[in-house]
Order: sequence, then structure tokens, then C-alpha cells
Amino acid sequence: MNKRKRKKWSARQSSKRGTVPGTPVFIGESRSEAVRIGSISYDRGDLVEKGALSLDDVHRPYRSEGVTWINVDGIHDLKVMDALGKRFGLHPLTIEDLMNTSQRPKAEVFPDYLFLVMKMMNYNDETNSVDVEHVSLILGEGYVLSFQEKEGDVFEPVRERLRASRGRLRGNGSDYLAYALMDAVVDHYFLSVERIGDVIEDMDDRLLSDPRSDDLQRIHELKRDVMTLRKAVWPLREAVGKLQKSDASFFGNDLDAFLRDLYDHTIQVIDMVESSRELLTGMHDTYLSSVSNRMNEVMKVLTVIATIFIPLTFIAGVYGMNFKYMPELDWRFSYPVVWIVMIAVGAGMVAYFRRKRWL
Amino acid sequence: MNKRKRKKWSARQSSKRGTVPGTPVFIGESRSEAVRIGSISYDRGDLVEKGALSLDDVHRPYRSEGVTWINVDGIHDLKVMDALGKRFGLHPLTIEDLMNTSQRPKAEVFPDYLFLVMKMMNYNDETNSVDVEHVSLILGEGYVLSFQEKEGDVFEPVRERLRASRGRLRGNGSDYLAYALMDAVVDHYFLSVERIGDVIEDMDDRLLSDPRSDDLQRIHELKRDVMTLRKAVWPLREAVGKLQKSDASFFGNDLDAFLRDLYDHTIQVIDMVESSRELLTGMHDTYLSSVSNRMNEVMKVLTVIATIFIPLTFIAGVYGMNFKYMPELDWRFSYPVVWIVMIAVGAGMVAYFRRKRWL
Amino acid sequence: MNKRKRKKWSARQSSKRGTVPGTPVFIGESRSEAVRIGSISYDRGDLVEKGALSLDDVHRPYRSEGVTWINVDGIHDLKVMDALGKRFGLHPLTIEDLMNTSQRPKAEVFPDYLFLVMKMMNYNDETNSVDVEHVSLILGEGYVLSFQEKEGDVFEPVRERLRASRGRLRGNGSDYLAYALMDAVVDHYFLSVERIGDVIEDMDDRLLSDPRSDDLQRIHELKRDVMTLRKAVWPLREAVGKLQKSDASFFGNDLDAFLRDLYDHTIQVIDMVESSRELLTGMHDTYLSSVSNRMNEVMKVLTVIATIFIPLTFIAGVYGMNFKYMPELDWRFSYPVVWIVMIAVGAGMVAYFRRKRWL
Amino acid sequence: MNKRKRKKWSARQSSKRGTVPGTPVFIGESRSEAVRIGSISYDRGDLVEKGALSLDDVHRPYRSEGVTWINVDGIHDLKVMDALGKRFGLHPLTIEDLMNTSQRPKAEVFPDYLFLVMKMMNYNDETNSVDVEHVSLILGEGYVLSFQEKEGDVFEPVRERLRASRGRLRGNGSDYLAYALMDAVVDHYFLSVERIGDVIEDMDDRLLSDPRSDDLQRIHELKRDVMTLRKAVWPLREAVGKLQKSDASFFGNDLDAFLRDLYDHTIQVIDMVESSRELLTGMHDTYLSSVSNRMNEVMKVLTVIATIFIPLTFIAGVYGMNFKYMPELDWRFSYPVVWIVMIAVGAGMVAYFRRKRWL
Amino acid sequence: MNKRKRKKWSARQSSKRGTVPGTPVFIGESRSEAVRIGSISYDRGDLVEKGALSLDDVHRPYRSEGVTWINVDGIHDLKVMDALGKRFGLHPLTIEDLMNTSQRPKAEVFPDYLFLVMKMMNYNDETNSVDVEHVSLILGEGYVLSFQEKEGDVFEPVRERLRASRGRLRGNGSDYLAYALMDAVVDHYFLSVERIGDVIEDMDDRLLSDPRSDDLQRIHELKRDVMTLRKAVWPLREAVGKLQKSDASFFGNDLDAFLRDLYDHTIQVIDMVESSRELLTGMHDTYLSSVSNRMNEVMKVLTVIATIFIPLTFIAGVYGMNFKYMPELDWRFSYPVVWIVMIAVGAGMVAYFRRKRWL
Repeated sequence: MNKRKRKKWSARQSSKRGTVPGTPVFIGESRSEAVRIGSISYDRGDLVEKGALSLDDVHRPYRSEGVTWINVDGIHDLKVMDALGKRFGLHPLTIEDLMNTSQRPKAEVFPDYLFLVMKMMNYNDETNSVDVEHVSLILGEGYVLSFQEKEGDVFEPVRERLRASRGRLRGNGSDYLAYALMDAVVDHYFLSVERIGDVIEDMDDRLLSDPRSDDLQRIHELKRDVMTLRKAVWPLREAVGKLQKSDASFFGNDLDAFLRDLYDHTIQVIDMVESSRELLTGMHDTYLSSVSNRMNEVMKVLTVIATIFIPLTFIAGVYGMNFKYMPELDWRFSYPVVWIVMIAVGAGMVAYFRRKRWL
Repeated sequence: MNKRKRKKWSARQSSKRGTVPGTPVFIGESRSEAVRIGSISYDRGDLVEKGALSLDDVHRPYRSEGVTWINVDGIHDLKVMDALGKRFGLHPLTIEDLMNTSQRPKAEVFPDYLFLVMKMMNYNDETNSVDVEHVSLILGEGYVLSFQEKEGDVFEPVRERLRASRGRLRGNGSDYLAYALMDAVVDHYFLSVERIGDVIEDMDDRLLSDPRSDDLQRIHELKRDVMTLRKAVWPLREAVGKLQKSDASFFGNDLDAFLRDLYDHTIQVIDMVESSRELLTGMHDTYLSSVSNRMNEVMKVLTVIATIFIPLTFIAGVYGMNFKYMPELDWRFSYPVVWIVMIAVGAGMVAYFRRKRWL
Repeated sequence: MNKRKRKKWSARQSSKRGTVPGTPVFIGESRSEAVRIGSISYDRGDLVEKGALSLDDVHRPYRSEGVTWINVDGIHDLKVMDALGKRFGLHPLTIEDLMNTSQRPKAEVFPDYLFLVMKMMNYNDETNSVDVEHVSLILGEGYVLSFQEKEGDVFEPVRERLRASRGRLRGNGSDYLAYALMDAVVDHYFLSVERIGDVIEDMDDRLLSDPRSDDLQRIHELKRDVMTLRKAVWPLREAVGKLQKSDASFFGNDLDAFLRDLYDHTIQVIDMVESSRELLTGMHDTYLSSVSNRMNEVMKVLTVIATIFIPLTFIAGVYGMNFKYMPELDWRFSYPVVWIVMIAVGAGMVAYFRRKRWL
Repeated sequence: MNKRKRKKWSARQSSKRGTVPGTPVFIGESRSEAVRIGSISYDRGDLVEKGALSLDDVHRPYRSEGVTWINVDGIHDLKVMDALGKRFGLHPLTIEDLMNTSQRPKAEVFPDYLFLVMKMMNYNDETNSVDVEHVSLILGEGYVLSFQEKEGDVFEPVRERLRASRGRLRGNGSDYLAYALMDAVVDHYFLSVERIGDVIEDMDDRLLSDPRSDDLQRIHELKRDVMTLRKAVWPLREAVGKLQKSDASFFGNDLDAFLRDLYDHTIQVIDMVESSRELLTGMHDTYLSSVSNRMNEVMKVLTVIATIFIPLTFIAGVYGMNFKYMPELDWRFSYPVVWIVMIAVGAGMVAYFRRKRWL
Repeated sequence: MNKRKRKKWSARQSSKRGTVPGTPVFIGESRSEAVRIGSISYDRGDLVEKGALSLDDVHRPYRSEGVTWINVDGIHDLKVMDALGKRFGLHPLTIEDLMNTSQRPKAEVFPDYLFLVMKMMNYNDETNSVDVEHVSLILGEGYVLSFQEKEGDVFEPVRERLRASRGRLRGNGSDYLAYALMDAVVDHYFLSVERIGDVIEDMDDRLLSDPRSDDLQRIHELKRDVMTLRKAVWPLREAVGKLQKSDASFFGNDLDAFLRDLYDHTIQVIDMVESSRELLTGMHDTYLSSVSNRMNEVMKVLTVIATIFIPLTFIAGVYGMNFKYMPELDWRFSYPVVWIVMIAVGAGMVAYFRRKRWL
């Protein structure tokens, strides 16, 4: 399961080899579901929500006021993407990146719009691994486009707030909406990191006392999950930092504090990810030394047992010799004396080993 | 114990997921104590100290001269925080950070005030771990607000000095007070690092001669404590550096040397923390090689014992054979001769092993 | 095979020692094939393709419009290179670098042309190693020169697109052609990284359950392949970054987005390479601990067997003693009783070891 | 011994906790010797040297020409330090740093003077450890103050040169004197690094052939010594670099080449320190693998001995069986034949093990 | 041998302790050979070569055209160096650095001349180590001074080219000559790295199949050689980079491409050095795991042998017991049956171990 995921994000790029640069090709797990397009248009007063739009209903909004958010579930259909690209004046390379699930997070400023690539993270409790989904945002004047691989997202709370007219959302422009969506994605990272952190801590507590044979495998898998998160957050941090400094005025000045806060959150996620990595590295060492400790203990006990009996066997061997003239053999109490000697030797060795703390 | 602490600083963030950004939610261990607000107002001449203020008594000071320091113990009560936020004109994101115990140290300049997040550190001798407390400062014109999770802090010496009219404190503005509070927090870091350093050195001295089975666990715990300190000081250093360079004039020029000194101190704490980390890494190696050394010694001795007796047992076995025609069996002095041979072989092997320094 | 490759890129440089700097000398595996020169001239309307040009047919194009792409297969013939250098006004150091297969990737701006060194990568499924080929581009006004070590390249798709008049290629200048060639090289890196990635994953899945004795060797070889890729991509990233920032106007402004995309791709290759490295490092550890685990298991089982039989042998030895007065020897049921005792001791030890999970 | 040292530099800082910032408190090993103040005043012509000055004799020099160097041995007496501070117009934080032996090296520019903290290093052949002493310089117009913990310093050669009127010293200003003192301190670092380097090399040569049980401890101690040096030189390098770039004109332009030279020397010390560290890390590995090699050799030989005798014992055991019908027992030459067989088996095994190079 | 070398470059610095800064003292292996001075003066037309000049014949050239190259073999004679220093107007610190063989590579711009310190490297096939020689260049207007420790250098090819009037050398100024000398030194680095690389590869191929006991020592020595190279090239890279950027016009603009090429070469040497380092680190690991593998194999085989015979010895022991009532003893075919049982048990165990791949 975990493997499938890894491949999705990093491989397949080669399938594009040989095509014209800027030729959009879907890179990712092949899908056949129909593309679903939904939209929410709102201003301070009204909100109109439409589900399952046909491609013909989607236009670049020309309303002077209000914000339109168009969400596209499914990015594998070239025809749909091309049509959207044309209507919203997207650069061919943008469409290429929209459809390329192996594209790393970034922010790019085009004359007409701001293009943002992110990764949505979800810790899957069933497979015990992190699911990654490719999400892109287009922020233009008065509209936001969001693209996802499949239905089901982390944007639901934002929709709720829009509908409920809660918070600042309704009274602000498309830039604030884009910020809210980015914030929703980053907030979700915390959940993933924390879930992984919990798994790590549960394991860590058990590791020294009771190492299991599949723990090493599990630690490696967790390391990969953490790496996946890291690879999603690091470039996002960079992208958000770029947005902060960018001269292009896609984000109003009143959003400065919010972008700064978002940037802060990405740093915090990175901090937590780094802590997890260090913990995992420590656990790897702990596991190895714990396993080798147990092994050593076993070998020590076994060797002690052998060491105690080998001299005793020698004594028995001595009196098993068949010499004609062995005075002890004829003595009356030789046998019990030998037993006493053997017990004394054995007990003495056990005592010695105890005292030396070898047993 | 240690674990609870770690969780507090890094986890729980997810409980905020889905809320509007800038919505203050308390993130940390849930508390039920009432919030306690105290204030000290002073100028060069007078000092008025009030304890257990009710929320209604707290106002933004409008006195043209003098400094007001309001200290809030308890940050979990949203109502109180909201009310304070309104009266002092705090940005919603500031209130959010005030209440978020997992927020990392930082300095943020707002038009009206300077916002500072720090971590108070305390080495707890009972649990042998570092207690972390979330502390925030708001520095405005003529006032300083300080927020803590619970009563009992490192600010007592500052209060003492204020009351005693000692030092520069009374004659300077709110910026100097804020500096004094930051200095008190950083000074306390030294104590924690030194306490950890003492524990490390005590352990280090014993480790090579007498490694104990729980030492590894202890080393890991100390590493985490050191990491906790590191995570508190690194961003604080950055924050102080930012204050030094910042154009915003919350700190007067006459404080330059003091901020530089504070910055120096954070670097020194980091130096000490890094030294501790290296020591701990070295101790980890020492422990492992010390354990493996002991194990090897044990195995060597045991194997030597076995190796000495196995040839002797063979000799005894030879004369335990039942052949009819074994001339030695009938000889008169075979038995003592065999004993002599066996003793000679045994002694020879011991001598050889001694000479080779295997025993 | 692998070794030959490594040498090619890094060694042989010394053969140049003592010559005048800027004296072109071929550095690489000696070759004897004739140099093959081909050219494609095109504008939006026409395309003329010529194969196997003689040196006399190659001129710096003076057509005001259209682009000429001259591809040279074989860089070992000093005479040919010198002649080309003169006709296209190349700096002696450029010719030296063109012929030096150990030259690392770079971009250099000369007054008249832009000089680009790259490495072509090909994962060879037969030798299971990465083949490296030295490729250089010269971008001048209206022409592009490409130099390769031998026939067979990654530029075929670009030629196809030129012939088919597909994409932007035909309608753009020589800068776009140069970009398309660079893009073809970088796109091919993905293929190599992915092939290596597949080999790594296949191995990783098997490693814990069934480590083979040549795995370590294989891991080392893969590490070297990954290093080879890394050494090709890192400086290329730098070179592309330089092109982006360069004031020299060899690349038109309309290519900015494309260069940015190319830069992005190099970063992505580096990301994948770094992931592969980390995986390989992890696999190295896994292999070692897996091998040592198996060994430990074997030793444990063997030691357990010995430990069970040594006490039993001692018991047998006791009743092999020849004392005259050993009451047990004469008892009627001594023999079966001893058997029972021995079986009980053996079974007891097995049970104990089982319970302790040593067996 | 070594431990005492470490503590001195890094601990004790906490004793200052709770005091007003800028309150000078002596931090270091408590001392009771009286403070000794000496001075040398000179210009190109004359030199006046005074020893054991009383506090009242020390004044800020007002001579328009010439240089006064005041050296203070002993920094633990608050009264003395305070008085000096007042007479030379030192900032309270400067006095605090003068008395704080745990202060790290730094350079600070004050309006009136330049403040420099350094560490004097001395490899103590008796304790085999590095002694650290806290040294501070104050460079003002026409005077230099130097502060040390105790008598006996590395400045003697500078004094000699002053008295002998050798070199550039007498003809230059106070800035050159300060440079000469810094140079004397840095020059002394070379001696310490070289002494440690000698110890390391002696040990390294012996380590592979004859590892001793206390070598690991010694390596750790050397690592600490090297770390101590590193912690003294790194910040000093920074400080010297700062002096070079500083606009403040405490150092004349004619000293540029000298400061650059000093900077170079600090880099060279760092280079040597880093080499020593790498050597020590390598030695640590060498020691461990050397110890484990020896252990393995021992175990191998012992196991070979046991392995040779166990089959022989089995053969003897076979003919020790008491079956009635064992034809071999009655044969005439069974016994010598068995001996021959046993010797053949033993010799065969030895030969086999030899050929396999196990013995 | 190797050790002597190391000492030369890093130690001895202390012998200068206590002298006036800028006092030239020879630091290096003491020598007694006479200093040999040779000169070559040339312009495009003529070339005059003089060997074994006396000190009186050496003057700063005042010819308006042409270049004079004065080469000094032997830098230990203070009188000679001082005289040269005076005639060419060298700064005292320059003379100090000229004579200090432990000086690290650097470039320093003085008003009148450019000063360059380099290290000449030579892989000595006899001692299997790298010989280091301290080389300095002084580039002034119309002249170049080169200083070496002893006769025999890497400059011979440059001399040849000068005499043969080959290449650009004769027609260019002193800056080009300085460049050519630097290029000769760097070109020689390639030879050393490649020689070391060959040694490494030969060893690497053998290491897994046939590790020898002195391989570890050899790997350590190679690591040191590589480190020596690294310490020579890193600062040289920096120095060349500084020359490129320097405003001082010691190098004409027409040399830009050549300096860039030289810079490139230093980077390439560093790349090769880093590759060698990684290879050596990998070989260290390979060696250790290869040794431990062999040891494990031996122990496993030995333990298997013991494990097979111990149960058989037990069976023989059982029938060596002297009980009166042991029915088997009297049976007719007991003895052969026991043999069959023992052979079956032994063969069964061998088969089992084989199947488990323990043997």
C-alpha cells in the first residue's frame, strides 16, 4: 500500500518523455471517474452554490464584486483541463503542472494569476500510511480555482464557514479565500504529523522492553511517511515565503499577518517532522541495541550453563577411566564424595558468576 | 512524566483544525483554575502593586509617564483573553498565539505593539525532566503584558528589584522592563542547562566502569530534554536578533547594548546545549562499547574455561575406552601419570592464555 | 563495466598535463569511428535535413531568418573540432571543454555564443549501470551546435517534432531549440532515476526476508550510479539557474517560464536522487542488520542444542564412573529411571527456552 | 582535573541568576589572591614599567603621545573592577563580561573603547589537559587594559620586545599593542594544538597493534580538549573578522595586513583543530575495530580448539560403551588404531582450518 | 614517511612563538642546501635564460616590455629572502608567509604586487603517499617570482613552452605567465588524485573477496592523503575565485576566461577528492562488514561441527554407563544399531542445517 503511494508521487514522470514541453499529460494513477466541477459564488450578502456543473457553465467571472470559487475534482481529463485553461487564460506549463501529480509544491506568479501547487496529506489509519493528493490553486482577480485528484477534501470546513457566513471569509476577497484554502491544507498536516507522532510514541515505549521482529520494518515505513510529509512541507514553506515577499499584488497588504502566520505554521510542521525523524533514528538505534542485548543475554546464559557442566563432565570422565590401579575406585565413600565435589564445583561456579553479575 | 510534557508542546494543535484562522482556541493541557491577573505600576518615584484584579480593573494605561506591567496567570479562558485583546487592541492572530502553548518562540512587530513568545524552562528534580511553560510578552507604549500558563514564574526577581527600587529598572521605560523579563527567562535557561550538565557528568563518570541497564533509556531522556531546550532557544535567538535589527522603535537606542548582551546569552545557551548533545552522543557510544566490552569479557572467560576442560575430558575419555588390549590400563602408575599429564595440559593452556592476555 | 564508466568521467584528465591551456585534447575513451555531422535547417515553413555532411559543407548560417541545428556525433577528432571552432568563432577553451568528456556540466556566456555542457544519462539494462555521455550545446544567433561522443541520442523526439511541425518548435528561434534539447536531456534523467528506483524497490522488498551475499555489492553499485546522476544534475541545476538570471540575451523573455520549468525539473530530479540515496543508505543498514540477525538466530539455535545436551552428557558420564560402591548401578530400575530423568531435564530445558522465546 | 576545567568555563553562570543585568558578579573558580596591577608606559623613546600598583595609581592616561598598557592579574575583586570601570568609563555590561570567565570570545565596539574577550590556552603536560584562562582587552585611545584570572601569561614575549625596543612595537600606537597581544594569544594556540597533535599521533601509531583499555577514555578526553580549543577559536575568528570590517577606527589602516594575518592564523588553528577531530574520530573507530578484532581472534582460536577435540571425544566415547558384543574391543590392535585415527582426524582438521586460514 | 609529511605542513608553527609578527622565520623541515636562483626573461622575440644567479644579479626588472620570471629553489635562507624582499618591495608579512611551509593557500593583493601561496602535490609511488611542497608566486608588473622548497618542480612544461615559443605564452604579459604556473600546479593535482583513485579502485575490487589485515591501515592512510589534497585545493579555489572578482588589475580582462577555467579545474579536483572520500568511507564499511562476515562464517561452521558431535557424544555416553541392568548392553546387535542411529542423527542434522542454509 505504502509502496503504491510512493510511486505515485515520484514515478511516472517518464511517461511524458518525448512530448513537447508544455504539453499537458496526466501523470499519476490512471482514473476513469468523470470530472466533477462545483462552484460557490459569494459576496458579503449572497452565496450561490452549484454542484456538478457542466463544462459549458464554467466561465471566468466578470462580476466586479464578489468571489467565485470553482473546485474541480479529477485532473486526468485532458479535454476538460484544456477547456478550463483556455477560459481562464492559463499558460500551457500551468496546465501541465496541474495534471502532473508528481509536481512538487511551488508558487508561480503569472501576469494574470497566481499558481500554487500543494500536497494534501491524510494519515490513513487502515493502511497505516500517509495518503498524498495533488492539489493546485489558481488565484485570479475575483476567482479561485482549486484542482484535486478525487472527491473528498480538507476544504469542507472552509465551505461550511462560507455558508454560515462565519468569520472574515465572506467579507473578504479572493485572496483571503486562497489563504483560507492554503491554511486548511497546512492545518491538516498537523493532524498527520500528530497521528504519526502518536504511533511513534506508542512504539517507542514498547521498544526497549519488547522489541518485535517487524519493528524495524515499521520504523522504516514511518521514516518514509515522515519523509513524504517533509517533501510536501519544505517546498511549500519556500512558496509561502515567496508569496510574502512577492511584489505582485495578488495578496492584499491586510493579509500580511495571515501569510506570516501560515509561514509560521509550515515552520512548525517542519519542526515536528524533524523531531519525528530524530525520534525514529533514535528508535532505530534503540531497536538494534535492544535486539542485540537480548541476544547477548541469551548467549551469556547458555554459555554459563555449558561452562558449569563441562568441568563436571570432566570429573565424571576421570572416574570413568579403566585403569587397573585407581585407588579411589575401591574406596568406600568415593562415589558420594565425588558427588559432593561436583556439586561444590558447580555451586561455586554459579556463585562466582553471580557475584560477577554474569548470571 | 516526560512524555506528557513533550505532547503538550507539540501535539493538540490539531484540535484547532477547521476553525477560522485567527480564532483563538486554547491549545495545551486543559486547566480549570481561575485566571489570576496582577499589575504593578511604577515610575521613578512610586510603585503600586495590585493582586487578583478583576477583568474590569484592567485598562490600557493612559498615564503619560510611568510603566504598567500586567501579568496574567492562566491563558485557557477564552473570554478573559478576548476581553484583554479588545482593550489592548491586539490582533486576532496574536490572541490565537497567546493561547497556543505549542507556538514556537518568535517576535512579531505590530503597528501598536511588539509581540514576543518565549518558553520558560525549569529542570524538575523530581521527575528528572524539563518542564516547559508557554510565556508571551506584549510590549506597548507605557505597558507590558505578560501571559503564563500557571502561577509561579521566573519573574519574581524582577518584581523584587522593582519593589526595592534597585538597579536601572525603575528609572527606565516599558522597553527596559520587557528586556528585564526576557533576560530573566534566558538566565533561567542557564540553570536548566547546568542542572542537565551536572546529571550528564555524574553519569559520564560512572558509565565506563559501571554501565547500568537503564542508562540507555536515561541517555535518551536527557537527549530529549536537551532537544526541548534547543527548540526553545534557537528561535528565541532569532527573535532577539530580529529585535536588534528591527527599525520599529519599541526598544530605545540606549538598550542596544543590553539586547546585544541578551543575544550573546542565547548564543551561549545554544553553545552549552550543543556541548551537552555531543557529550550525550559520546556517552551513547561509550555505553554501547562498554556494554559490549563487558559481554565480550564474559564470553571470553567462559570460552577459555570450556576450552581448557574439553581436551582434558578427551584424555579422560580415551582411558575410559573398553579395549581389551590397552597396555596403559594395566601399568602401575598410569593413573597418577594421567593426572599429571592432565594438570600439565591444563596449566600449560592457562599459562599460554595468560601470556596471550586472553585471560 | 561499471568501473570503465566511472573512469571515463573522472580520470584521463592527466593525459593533458603539460600542454598549453586552451589546447584542445580529447579526453575520454579512445575512439576510431569517423565523425558524423548532420544538420537540420528550418523556419516556420520549410525544413531541410542533411545527413553525413562533409566538413566543407558546414558554415555558420547567415540566413536572417530560420534556425540551423548542426549535430556532431564524435568529438575525438581534433582536426574536425578545430575547423568547426574556427568557422563558428569558438574560444580555444570552449573547444577544449567540448572534447573533454570529464568536464562537469556548466553554462558559459561568451560574447558571441552561449556554451552549455551536459551529461546524457542512460540506464543500461544489460550492465545494470548508468551510461554517461558528454553532450555540449553551442547556442548562437540563428544556430545551435550539439556535440556528442557517439551516435544514438535522446534528441530523436525533438527531431520528430521538428519534422512533424508539431508544437511550438518550428515557429520559434534557436533559443527555443536549445531549450528543447536541454529539456530532452533532463527528461531522460527521470527515466534513469525511475529505472534505478524500480531496481531499488524490488531489492528493498526482498532484503529483509532473503538477503543475498551479493546484495551489499549491488547496493554499493547502485549508490555509485545514483552518485553519477547526482554529479550530472547538481551542476546542471546551477547552470540553468545562471541562464535564468543572466543578463545576456541568448534566451528571449518569452522563454522565462520554460527555463523556470526546466529548473524545476532539475530540482525534482535532485529530489528523487536524494530519496534514492536515503533509501540505499537505509537498505545498507537493513541488509547488515538482516544478515547479523540471521547469523544470530543460527548461533542461538546451535547454542541451545549444545546447552541441552551438555548436562545430559554429564549425567551419562556420572554413571559411567567405575567406582566399586555406587549403589545405583546395582538397582533394578536405575537405567530406565536415568533415561526418564534425562528426558525430563532435556524437555524441561526446551520448555524453559521456549517460554523465554530463545528457541 | 579535566572536569574541573570544563565546569569552569561553562557552569556557574547560574550563580548570577536574579541579579540586575549589568551587575558585575565574578563567575569562575573562587580565588582569594590579591589583585595585582602592573603598567608599562612607552613611546618611541622611553619606557616606564611599574609593578604592583595600588588602585589609586591607575588613571586613564592623558598623555597626548605614547601608549600605556595596564595589566590586571585577578578579576574576582568586584571593588577593584568597579573602580577601574569608573576611571576608564567602561559600560556596566563590559565589567560584567570582564568578570565572567564563562563569557565566550567576542569583540564589541563601544563609543569610547573596543572590548575584546579571548581565551588563553595552555596544554598542561602534568594533567594532560588544556588549561583555559579568561583574558580580556580594552583598547582605548593611547591605552590598553588587559585582564587575566591569575599571574603568568603568554604576554611575556611582548613585554620583552617592548623593553628591548625590538620590532615595530615601540614606534606604533595602542592599536598595534592590542594586535600584538592578540597575536601572542593566537600564537600560543598553535603550541596547544601541536602538543595535542603529538599526543594523538603517538597514540595513533600504537592503537592498531596494541590497544589498551584506557585508550577509549583518553580519546574522549582528547576530543574534549580539542572541543575546548575549538570553542575558543571559532568565536575569536568571528571577532577578528568583525574588527577587520568594522568602520570604527580603533585599528589604523596600516594594521589591515596584520589583522588579515591574524585572521589567517585563527583559520589555520581551526583547520588544525578540525584535522585533529577527524583523526580522533578515526582513532575511535580504529580502537573499536582493533579491540573487536582481537576479541574475534581469541574466540576463533578457542572455538577451533574446542571443535578439534569434540569429535575426538566422541570417538573415545564410542569405545567407552559397554556393549557385550563390540568386536573392536577384543581386537589386538584396536587401541593403537584408534589413536592413529584420532590423531589423523585431529591433524586433518588442523590442516583444513589452516588451509582455510581460520587458524 | 607519511607522518613526516603531515608534520611538516601542520606543525613547527610553534617555533615562531614569541617573535615579532612579520618577522620571517623559516618553518618547515630544516635544510642546508644552498638557495638556487634562476631567471628567464622573454618577450615575443627573445628569450634569455640564466641559471644559478648570485643574489647580486637579481633586480626588479625595469624593462618596459617583456617578462622576467625569477625562480627561487630553497626558502630556508633568511638572508636571501630578506634581500629579495627588499629589492622587490615585499611586505614583511609576505616574506614571513613565503618562508612558512605551513601557510595555507591564499591570494593577497598588495598595492604593488599580488601574492599567491599554493601547495604542489606529488603522489610518491615509493612511499605510497602524497608529497607536499610549499610554492609561492609574486606577480608584479613585468615580473613573476616563484619560490619553492627544493629543486624539481611541475613548472618544467611551462619552461619548455617558453623556450619553444609555443602557445600564447611568449606573446603575453606576466599575468599570463602567473596563470600558466598556477595552471601547471592545478593540472598536477589531477595526476595525484587519479593515482590515488587507481590505488583505491584496485583495493576496492579486492576488498570484498579478500580483505587483508593491513587494509584498514591502508584505508586510513589514503584518507589522510585525500585530506591533504583537499586542504590544498579548497583554499586555492577560494583564492582563484577572489582573483576573478578582484578589482585590482593584476590580471588583464583577456585572462577572464582562463581564470574561470582554472576555477573550474579546482572545482573538478574537489569533486574528485570528494568522490574519493566517499569511496574510502564506503570501503571502510565494506572492509569491516567483510571481515565480520568471514569471522561469522568461521564461527558458524565451527559451531555446526560442535553441535553435530555433542548429541552423538551423549548417545555414546549413555551406553558407557555401568548399570547392571541395561538390557541393550547384552543384545546381539546393539552396537551396530547404535552406530546406525548415531550416523542417522549426524546425517539428519547435517541435512537439516544444509536445508536451513546454515552450512
